[in-house]
Amino acid sequence: MSYFDAASAAPLHPVARQALLASLDDGWADPARLYREGRKARMLLDAAREAAAEAVGCRADEVVFTSSGTRAVHTGVGGALAGRRRVGRHLIVSSVEHSSVLHSAEVFESDGGTVTQVAVDRAGAVDPAAYEAALREDTALAVLQSANHEVGTVQPVAEVAGVCRAAGVPLLVDAAQSLGWGPVEGDWSLLTGSAHKWGGPSGVGLLVVRKGVRFAVQGPADERESGRAAGFENIPAIVAAVASLRAVRAEAAQEAVRLRELTARIRTRVPQLVPDVEVVGDPERRVPGIVTFSCLYVDGEALLHELDREGFAVSSGSSCTSSTLTPSHVLKAMGVLSEGNVRVSLPPGTAEADVERFLEVLPGTVAGVREKLGAPAPAKAVPAEEAGEVVVDSLGRRCPIPVIELAKVFGGVPVGGTVRVLSDDEAARLDIPAWCEMRGQEYVGEEPAERGSAYVVRKVS
Amino acid sequence: MSYFDAASAAPLHPVARQALLASLDDGWADPARLYREGRKARMLLDAAREAAAEAVGCRADEVVFTSSGTRAVHTGVGGALAGRRRVGRHLIVSSVEHSSVLHSAEVFESDGGTVTQVAVDRAGAVDPAAYEAALREDTALAVLQSANHEVGTVQPVAEVAGVCRAAGVPLLVDAAQSLGWGPVEGDWSLLTGSAHKWGGPSGVGLLVVRKGVRFAVQGPADERESGRAAGFENIPAIVAAVASLRAVRAEAAQEAVRLRELTARIRTRVPQLVPDVEVVGDPERRVPGIVTFSCLYVDGEALLHELDREGFAVSSGSSCTSSTLTPSHVLKAMGVLSEGNVRVSLPPGTAEADVERFLEVLPGTVAGVREKLGAPAPAKAVPAEEAGEVVVDSLGRRCPIPVIELAKVFGGVPVGGTVRVLSDDEAARLDIPAWCEMRGQEYVGEEPAERGSAYVVRKVS
Repeated sequence: MSYFDAASAAPLHPVARQALLASLDDGWADPARLYREGRKARMLLDAAREAAAEAVGCRADEVVFTSSGTRAVHTGVGGALAGRRRVGRHLIVSSVEHSSVLHSAEVFESDGGTVTQVAVDRAGAVDPAAYEAALREDTALAVLQSANHEVGTVQPVAEVAGVCRAAGVPLLVDAAQSLGWGPVEGDWSLLTGSAHKWGGPSGVGLLVVRKGVRFAVQGPADERESGRAAGFENIPAIVAAVASLRAVRAEAAQEAVRLRELTARIRTRVPQLVPDVEVVGDPERRVPGIVTFSCLYVDGEALLHELDREGFAVSSGSSCTSSTLTPSHVLKAMGVLSEGNVRVSLPPGTAEADVERFLEVLPGTVAGVREKLGAPAPAKAVPAEEAGEVVVDSLGRRCPIPVIELAKVFGGVPVGGTVRVLSDDEAARLDIPAWCEMRGQEYVGEEPAERGSAYVVRKVS
Repeated sequence: MSYFDAASAAPLHPVARQALLASLDDGWADPARLYREGRKARMLLDAAREAAAEAVGCRADEVVFTSSGTRAVHTGVGGALAGRRRVGRHLIVSSVEHSSVLHSAEVFESDGGTVTQVAVDRAGAVDPAAYEAALREDTALAVLQSANHEVGTVQPVAEVAGVCRAAGVPLLVDAAQSLGWGPVEGDWSLLTGSAHKWGGPSGVGLLVVRKGVRFAVQGPADERESGRAAGFENIPAIVAAVASLRAVRAEAAQEAVRLRELTARIRTRVPQLVPDVEVVGDPERRVPGIVTFSCLYVDGEALLHELDREGFAVSSGSSCTSSTLTPSHVLKAMGVLSEGNVRVSLPPGTAEADVERFLEVLPGTVAGVREKLGAPAPAKAVPAEEAGEVVVDSLGRRCPIPVIELAKVFGGVPVGGTVRVLSDDEAARLDIPAWCEMRGQEYVGEEPAERGSAYVVRKVS
């Protein structure tokens, strides 16, 4: 099996496994106790905190171990907002943050706060000037990921931190996707991470709160972790998490070059091997292991199943693979195609041969899924005729059918003519404009219809 | 080393260790994913949930795995209160609950809720009639532990659940100290537990919410664990937790008899071996492994250090061992002596020889600590003389000095005479009345003084 979903969870690093085993014997007792077992546990915890601080580039007493990356984000965002409540109740996030950030923002909004979502470009990156423009007198906190979890695009964190610092606003950096590769640069105020993303065990998150940042923990009091992470410390897992962070960091520079070449290979060759594919995310400013592309006329769930049968574990931001029936908010914010979306995220150590085999298998797999769905043959040129309008009724049909139906009739539409696609699938709103962009056709716009919406496309060539 | 602090954290059960190792290989992936590794993880999680439900006596879809017992309590109390917000904002807890419950109650109170603390008797038990009397029209939730964590007293949970059920109020049972011994009886609505108390790994708590109980999760949304426990599931730890719960349950009946005999031996023999000791907690209705006693004229921290040097790990509810300088709220609520407090909590498998060695070592250890503190010799009878008042100035002196000073002068006080102890140590408020109770002397009361308080004691015999 080739596991290409490291951005969800990386397999346990051998060093993490060793450290976990060793500290199961010495780290199970209560580190607050005075007896020998308690002191041993406390020493392990203290040493782990020192090592984590060194890897992050902060002081040991700024490090809090939480029970997950999600919990670190919830605590960090909530605590920073509450700590600066007197300043104001305005929060800035990017539109492509992890759901843990966006859900924290929702809670803040429902509690009377105001949230500004900073837009991203088509590559998924924010513009520091847009953060600067979003800053207000009453801004309590800004949040930005170090790199995007779905497309790998690296954000200009140092620049945004500078802009925030100048305005006296703390910046929380969600470093979940990049912490294994290196420390986060720039003058940030809070930082979060998640151990199972870098090969550590599940159950450990990292929250760093720089000295001097106002912070007020929410929820019931608890004396553990300076009062910032309630519940008995999971010391064996913390020790394993930090040991594996050091281990992956030691290999990071070399492994980054290798994985970057492998993902670049996928970026270049997939569009050559598979027709009607859009590779998304920044081609240069990206983390080494992630590459994402979307395939027109493909049902994401079917594609994942077929790839799984071929021995590849990948994930997808297509609406047809999620329980919510809405496409990934990241792809939506970028304005790129979501149907047939595939995220390949290579764990360190991925063999070149596995990537080559993926590139061999992919074209046939995509073609097979398209054939089952009755996807149109690659587009053919059609001579210009009189203008007219064709209506495609895709009501009740799910992604990728509306785009398939559009493409099927499009060949027969004269230049200047329009197609009106009726659809009640949320994904169509994203995928029909994205199809136009890929095909060089004009997306006229969306109009309300009796049921769902009408998406109007004009043939320009 | 004899580890006698299982009520804080039990050493990892061998079965937990095996299960953890096995599932590190199969349970690290995201159980929400469609590929093979995800499905394997999901199967492990589903099987663990079924097994946990069987051990608790509930449905699998009522079980939520949290990151700790504390987190289970915070989520359970917060969610149940919010779910019944329309009914009212009144919460009932006992005065001897775990700090995670009491801190949840504090947050609720600071947010406008009302909390009734039900008192306990001198053995630490609540009266079901007191819960019944505390129930109001606007009571949203009642909370009661299955057994007390500091003195081992078992609470009348089934009776209290019946009283609550009759009033239509859900009861949350904190079963942290008893779940390894068996399911909680009675018609409770919510239940919490903590894996590292029964020999499972750190990082796993259990929250059970019965179908039909109104429950509204607080904090940012998250799709994991039916939306009730945010963050990536820690499946290897969950599998290990449930495997060890089954393992300790299989041995529970036999081990309960054995440990109950060992703790009964300590209950009986410590007062015979050590002068001026009070054994606290219910002698009969108690969990098998816990026995707690307090030694007059002893500094709890010094005693713990000496016992540690002798190879015994125990804990203490004395103020002198806590960072807050206040004695255990449990001992306070029971109205028993807190100074020189020792909790012995035996893990399953404790050898009889270790308990015997503890009984051998204890008298000399206590005597040594008393000698260093200049504790009074055992009380001698003094002939009646004229009544008078002696003033003892213990201002600025910490527990157990005020009681030692009181005892030193007391021998010279005539029957009918009084001693006025001036103290600014919080522990004196608890320990001077407790001393009177132990000595059969009259505690007249507390009076405000220029600094601290004056505690007045009358000699009656």
